[in-house]
Amino acid sequence: HRFYGESKPFGNDSYKSADTLGYLTSTQALADFAVLITSLKQNLSAVDAPVVVFGGSYGGMLASWFRLKYPHVAMGALASSAPILQFDDITPWSSFYDAVSQDFKSESLNCFSVIKAVWDVLDYRGSNDSGLLELSKTFRACKTVRFPSSLSNWLWTAFTYTAMVDYPTPANFMMNLPAYPVKEMCKIIDSFPVGADVVEKAFTAASLYYNYTGDQKCFEMEGGDDPHGLSGWGWQACTEMVMPMTVSNESMFPPSGFSYEEKSEGCFASYEVRPRMNWITTEYGGHKIDKVLKRFGSNIIFSNGMRDPWSRGGVLKNISSSIIALVTEKGAHHLDFRSATKDDPDWVVEQRRQEVEIIHGWIDQYNKDIAQM
Amino acid sequence: HRFYGESKPFGNDSYKSADTLGYLTSTQALADFAVLITSLKQNLSAVDAPVVVFGGSYGGMLASWFRLKYPHVAMGALASSAPILQFDDITPWSSFYDAVSQDFKSESLNCFSVIKAVWDVLDYRGSNDSGLLELSKTFRACKTVRFPSSLSNWLWTAFTYTAMVDYPTPANFMMNLPAYPVKEMCKIIDSFPVGADVVEKAFTAASLYYNYTGDQKCFEMEGGDDPHGLSGWGWQACTEMVMPMTVSNESMFPPSGFSYEEKSEGCFASYEVRPRMNWITTEYGGHKIDKVLKRFGSNIIFSNGMRDPWSRGGVLKNISSSIIALVTEKGAHHLDFRSATKDDPDWVVEQRRQEVEIIHGWIDQYNKDIAQM
Repeated sequence: HRFYGESKPFGNDSYKSADTLGYLTSTQALADFAVLITSLKQNLSAVDAPVVVFGGSYGGMLASWFRLKYPHVAMGALASSAPILQFDDITPWSSFYDAVSQDFKSESLNCFSVIKAVWDVLDYRGSNDSGLLELSKTFRACKTVRFPSSLSNWLWTAFTYTAMVDYPTPANFMMNLPAYPVKEMCKIIDSFPVGADVVEKAFTAASLYYNYTGDQKCFEMEGGDDPHGLSGWGWQACTEMVMPMTVSNESMFPPSGFSYEEKSEGCFASYEVRPRMNWITTEYGGHKIDKVLKRFGSNIIFSNGMRDPWSRGGVLKNISSSIIALVTEKGAHHLDFRSATKDDPDWVVEQRRQEVEIIHGWIDQYNKDIAQM
Repeated sequence: HRFYGESKPFGNDSYKSADTLGYLTSTQALADFAVLITSLKQNLSAVDAPVVVFGGSYGGMLASWFRLKYPHVAMGALASSAPILQFDDITPWSSFYDAVSQDFKSESLNCFSVIKAVWDVLDYRGSNDSGLLELSKTFRACKTVRFPSSLSNWLWTAFTYTAMVDYPTPANFMMNLPAYPVKEMCKIIDSFPVGADVVEKAFTAASLYYNYTGDQKCFEMEGGDDPHGLSGWGWQACTEMVMPMTVSNESMFPPSGFSYEEKSEGCFASYEVRPRMNWITTEYGGHKIDKVLKRFGSNIIFSNGMRDPWSRGGVLKNISSSIIALVTEKGAHHLDFRSATKDDPDWVVEQRRQEVEIIHGWIDQYNKDIAQM
């Protein structure tokens, strides 16, 4: 994908401004894939070889969109944890954080309540310098933090990402984590003695995310580099990939709204561009997707795990006999795409088996069609 | 369609160079339609209204591609005389001019032979100034022509376009013409006495195309304006819409080949761009279209008349139960899209009836699906 990983079309200037970033769009990325695959098939003397595209998360969106836009290049797609319905007003804006909260609530109501309570406490204690100094010590910050929001964000990231990667086996996707890390976080919170400090509880739980291996002496809470090479995403979110998200009063996070105007102002300040708020659904659809694709398109698997908060913006019901939703109750963010381990629960093994079986079916049919020529 | 008709995104500078023409692509045009239709539906409070797109010729290609790329915006397409298979090597490169020739041959072998013979005679007689002066008189040129190729092109245009618009009723699409103008041209040629001059015959036949109404005192054979506002097409043909065409020895035209290198050089000379020779099939498909669309896509009618030489690059066989080819033996270039007249033969009336019936079926099904929600 242009502008991600090693792909820097304008070298170190690639992310400088709209002049260079203008070449970063999902549409262009899909066209790149079409050119690449077509060219590979020709160069490998495999013009008739069936191609199935795979992707997870944003890559899952791209996989499903690629199948829809380039059916002559890819005869099938497996889109894992692809929140293609997280645009416009198709999925309720509060779904994501409600789902994160539900993940914690399902482990322990106390765990949920502690996290829900911590934000106000942080703001209150962090409202003066001595409080911030004290909190910096509690959080083992490498440098005294300047804004209480840095601490909130640090916790917020830990809880949100842990919900996403709530895998049933030890994993190292975003961070090194044990099996079912949400359950482990809640165990930490619940094992504190009665009357223990809510901030202490939240910090210790969040440390599971940042420091499960125990090798961090202190934490960088302000500044620091982008560890995931996502410089391009900010641009995409400010041009086409506008996913409105709010935090409801029922969640465990501090409530917040979403304003198209604010989003637009922020994007203009960052890049001197304005987002095209409804572009993704104009270009790729999404509204009434079941009706639209009921008789249009074929050969797409949408896989989702319900522990993954992104699943709420995914396709969770079969649309046709070959546009299929595979849902696992305990699955997390594109769990099916992780390497198999000896500890994988049966339902993951079964999900992967189904995916292979369905794709085999597509390929068999494809080969039959080609043989008829 | 941007850059056609009244649409000049950069005013009079629109066609100046690649800087401005770079915004003219079929992909961008389709995206424009998607934005326009989506916006219209919202503004007219008709978000759920079923939309069917119609187009003929290049517009027919766009209609079918729009249905394939934007199934969530248009639920069906009627693509009339859409030569979406006239790219790469899908359709034999000589098909178009073979088909034009066949149209004339089917009326009269003598007619075909006269036209086939005229080109060499023109070149021979036009090879010196006195010959060109003589020919200019024969052709009633407003100004003495400078190149014999101008005369050949003038004839070439007349025969080719007349084959395209060989309508069963009097029409005024490119030019004012009687019913079945190919037959009329051949009648003119065949009614000359034995031994009459081949150039005189060809000129008189071609005059049917240029001067059926009889009001032209002389003909502009060199220079002159583009009468059809097609300034954008040259650009598109030099970037994406590369349709390789040759003239075979079996046709009635002077044989010629097609060279990607020459095409590329010509485009570089005109616009300082090089064509992307296989882009259309990469972006929209075309190879093995029957296999690809057999289970992908729905609700497209491809209509073609076999008198139209473009039909050879069209979809002439049903692909699935809802991707349907309607073929009329005597039809010409998007005849179905012309206004009904009292003289329309039964088979045109029947073709249009079928189109309406099929589209009604799509809409009925669409409304049933929407009602289920």
